[in-house]
Amino acid sequence: MPGREMRFWGWGEDARAGEPLAHRLDWLRERLGTSLAAPSPPPRLDDLRLDTGALTGATLGELRTIVGAGGVRDDRAARVQHAAGKGYPDLVRLRSGDARPAPDAVVWPATHAQTRAVLELCARRGIAVVPFGGGTSVVGGVEPLRGSHGSVIALDTGRMSRLVALDERSCLAVLEPGLRGPEVEHLLRARGWTLGHLPQSFEYSTAGGWVATRSAGQASTGYGRIDALVHGARLAAPAGDVVLPAMPASAAGPDLRELLVGSEGVLGVLTQVTLRVRPRPASGRYEAWMLPGFQAGREALRTLTQDGLAPDVARLSDEPETEMSLVLAGGGLRSALLDRYVRARGVDGGALAIVGWEGEPARVAWRRRGGAAALRRFGGVALGPGPGRAWARGRFHAPYLRDDLLARGVLVDTLETAAPWSGLERLYRSVRDALGEHAPLVACHVSHLYPTGASLYFTFLARQDAGDPLGQWSRAKRAACEAIVAAGGTISHHHAVGRDHARYLPAEASPLGVEALRAAKARLDPSGIMNPGKLLTDSPIGATDFAQRIWTGPLR
Amino acid sequence: MPGREMRFWGWGEDARAGEPLAHRLDWLRERLGTSLAAPSPPPRLDDLRLDTGALTGATLGELRTIVGAGGVRDDRAARVQHAAGKGYPDLVRLRSGDARPAPDAVVWPATHAQTRAVLELCARRGIAVVPFGGGTSVVGGVEPLRGSHGSVIALDTGRMSRLVALDERSCLAVLEPGLRGPEVEHLLRARGWTLGHLPQSFEYSTAGGWVATRSAGQASTGYGRIDALVHGARLAAPAGDVVLPAMPASAAGPDLRELLVGSEGVLGVLTQVTLRVRPRPASGRYEAWMLPGFQAGREALRTLTQDGLAPDVARLSDEPETEMSLVLAGGGLRSALLDRYVRARGVDGGALAIVGWEGEPARVAWRRRGGAAALRRFGGVALGPGPGRAWARGRFHAPYLRDDLLARGVLVDTLETAAPWSGLERLYRSVRDALGEHAPLVACHVSHLYPTGASLYFTFLARQDAGDPLGQWSRAKRAACEAIVAAGGTISHHHAVGRDHARYLPAEASPLGVEALRAAKARLDPSGIMNPGKLLTDSPIGATDFAQRIWTGPLR
Repeated sequence: MPGREMRFWGWGEDARAGEPLAHRLDWLRERLGTSLAAPSPPPRLDDLRLDTGALTGATLGELRTIVGAGGVRDDRAARVQHAAGKGYPDLVRLRSGDARPAPDAVVWPATHAQTRAVLELCARRGIAVVPFGGGTSVVGGVEPLRGSHGSVIALDTGRMSRLVALDERSCLAVLEPGLRGPEVEHLLRARGWTLGHLPQSFEYSTAGGWVATRSAGQASTGYGRIDALVHGARLAAPAGDVVLPAMPASAAGPDLRELLVGSEGVLGVLTQVTLRVRPRPASGRYEAWMLPGFQAGREALRTLTQDGLAPDVARLSDEPETEMSLVLAGGGLRSALLDRYVRARGVDGGALAIVGWEGEPARVAWRRRGGAAALRRFGGVALGPGPGRAWARGRFHAPYLRDDLLARGVLVDTLETAAPWSGLERLYRSVRDALGEHAPLVACHVSHLYPTGASLYFTFLARQDAGDPLGQWSRAKRAACEAIVAAGGTISHHHAVGRDHARYLPAEASPLGVEALRAAKARLDPSGIMNPGKLLTDSPIGATDFAQRIWTGPLR
Repeated sequence: MPGREMRFWGWGEDARAGEPLAHRLDWLRERLGTSLAAPSPPPRLDDLRLDTGALTGATLGELRTIVGAGGVRDDRAARVQHAAGKGYPDLVRLRSGDARPAPDAVVWPATHAQTRAVLELCARRGIAVVPFGGGTSVVGGVEPLRGSHGSVIALDTGRMSRLVALDERSCLAVLEPGLRGPEVEHLLRARGWTLGHLPQSFEYSTAGGWVATRSAGQASTGYGRIDALVHGARLAAPAGDVVLPAMPASAAGPDLRELLVGSEGVLGVLTQVTLRVRPRPASGRYEAWMLPGFQAGREALRTLTQDGLAPDVARLSDEPETEMSLVLAGGGLRSALLDRYVRARGVDGGALAIVGWEGEPARVAWRRRGGAAALRRFGGVALGPGPGRAWARGRFHAPYLRDDLLARGVLVDTLETAAPWSGLERLYRSVRDALGEHAPLVACHVSHLYPTGASLYFTFLARQDAGDPLGQWSRAKRAACEAIVAAGGTISHHHAVGRDHARYLPAEASPLGVEALRAAKARLDPSGIMNPGKLLTDSPIGATDFAQRIWTGPLR
């Protein structure tokens, strides 16, 4: 079992949580138009409501025969640890003392063969299987729904955590799925390489999870999304194996890799992935810029990207997020120096951009020169590397802040989308306005750039409705999702579909396209045990009350 | 109906065929170790064997009701024109005077709605449908097989040939499938844009065909393969439509675009594709280099590519192909100057590379400087832009040369594969040696570069066995395909699967992976009318004698 586990009721570990946000509360109070509650303590493990596990001793014994005695647990701690991802409704539920639904047991296979054997046993016994990597899903992707089956296990990939091979001539690394972000980078960097995949969940999410959820990292504008990095994969499905050798490119029919990338555990368990890696960059430079506004900033980034000058990291905040960043981040971002610098040039109230380049120093310098010239053409003012470094230092910390806010009775959530450049302004306004009906504070940034479009990442905050926090959230979430669909955006640019977005998938994949995926699933998973109620589900049959409420309860 | 049709018995049009290869015959005779036959005349349309069309007048009438009277033809010329692609066995068959199998009729729908209606009618009547774009397949992709159905039509996309929309802010063009290469570029260039997709079939192949076959063009190292350019698509399937709006990127489940790209007509007909386009490049520079040998040259290209310095066009010939290029190409490539230049530097017998860069002059110059420095480090000698320009002028002409050779009783064919860099040497030797058992002249070039690997493109020539040309070809083809599979290459890097490679697909897609694709096909095409006997077929049930012979006849 991996040693480091996240706080079951929130993000990360106590030792890494850092300072709470006490000194920025005044600003928040003012913006939310209400006083904040005193921080409530997190729930205690022993107080949580939990159903008795549904697996018989005989079945648990069969599972132990496959994976060893240490590879199966049905104690309270293990079940609660795998009872939810880290989405807002999940955390609200756990904070309310409710750990239902929880898996009936957690199973840690150590090999591909053990994984296959577990799936075959579960197919025979009618046990649903929820693949579980880092457990960081914010879309309900690891919710232990059992569908039409009588029981459900979480299949934790944490014991499959080897760097299987590194082909340095071909820049390809073969990884097992349970490797977490820091482990991936540690193993690769020791040999002079990097994957460069840094989602905000980096410290806890896993290689397998990245592939299964079609993940994007903070540097994916430069390094490429995980789908661009996947070259080969191995899937253990209830009906057998799909083994896709690493190819640089192929014209041999539809690309089955792309069926596995983003499959979110509904087809089987990824037991190996072959990813493109790069020589560890010799240098990196992150810096902040202030643009005259969000719209001008987007035009600057579009021009940069279409001219082949996109930085490796690029995020551009709208005006509300710029203000929030300056207030909440403190430290490096909001020194007296910064204030003076910005005000002198008359772009106060502008849009903050973080841009970063990595690689050989000479090439970083060359690329930065081209990028900086373009940003200046659009009225950008360089704020220097200080705030850029501050952002890089705190890049994985935002989820802790969310826990602090939750404890104080604040609804805080994020969601994201993408669209072609020509549709981005409409998409931005639609989602911002839709969320604005439900939350006084809505902030947005462009998080990833492509020649043909970009992603938008929204954060929204409101005082929590203590009487019906789930209904409150559902209404806001639904309004945002419907605005995304109506404006032609994708329902997710990097959080995936999971439980929360499944009803919106047919809008962009076509109902018949979803049917084709279901047909492929039925061939790989004939008894439907793999991750029920996610991705390809549009009806809440067999779902828990909790999931039903998210899907349909307060919404229809 | 499009005005320009290819010679039914070979490539292209008489007016563009250019000079035959008369003056290089001595060299060929010597290398093939035999005298060549006198050129045989092409077959005459009226002499071809052809079965009577199997469609009733009533069915033809129903088709005409859908697409208009001019949109259906069952005359000899139309049927023969759609009786085959341009693979070696197809041309051998037609040259032998046999146009069987031919489609029972050819249908040209003008719209998506007409396409859907034709497919629905064919599903009801049990008529197989072979989507037909440019008809340039060299893997039997448009062979009019009827599978278990009583009749078969070719569905020609030639009347769907509009540039539907150009989104200049997002660099996205919406194209109808029947647009041929020159039409695509003409429409885009008139507005300052380019797709930059230039397969050797460019002059006749179509946008829909490129997407359906997962095509790569000569400049795809720089511009990206067609799969990297596809952002959206619309498919008319017998069971309904799949409409995928253009997205720059998404995490909304498996990427259905990748199910349509490379689907080779077995799922339905692509009636619209949205492709990334670029501003028309301001300048371009093509030049030739001589490297000390194929292996050293590959190392040079690998280093270039992994350092981010890949040219937009890069092809590197092995020693036999270098010699063949110098002899056969004549003119620009083999001037007395070139001889002196190369000999002075002691790289005679080396490996010829063509490299090209396109874009803003300053950036072309900058990229070229970096590329040239790397090529020199590996012993490369620049031969200047003259031979590069000569290559660019003749880039689409090789298929005419093949017709000349066929007329003289020479077996000539090409095949291609790709693998990670670490496996490329083994793949090269395996395929070269396997073909060498069947052909005295085997040549190869690297045609596309990726950070993780490259493609190999083989040409092989032998004196044709006049008594059993198909058996002779089948043995060579099979030996090469088995060598590719054994060495871990992909069965096709850019020619696709079609009829000829279908039996090798499970080796790289997994038998269960192919089953998953078949399940998706069954959902979209429940009666199995779409392009039977291609891509997902591993048994020749219902195939013609001709196809059976290719699949199994002389091979087992």
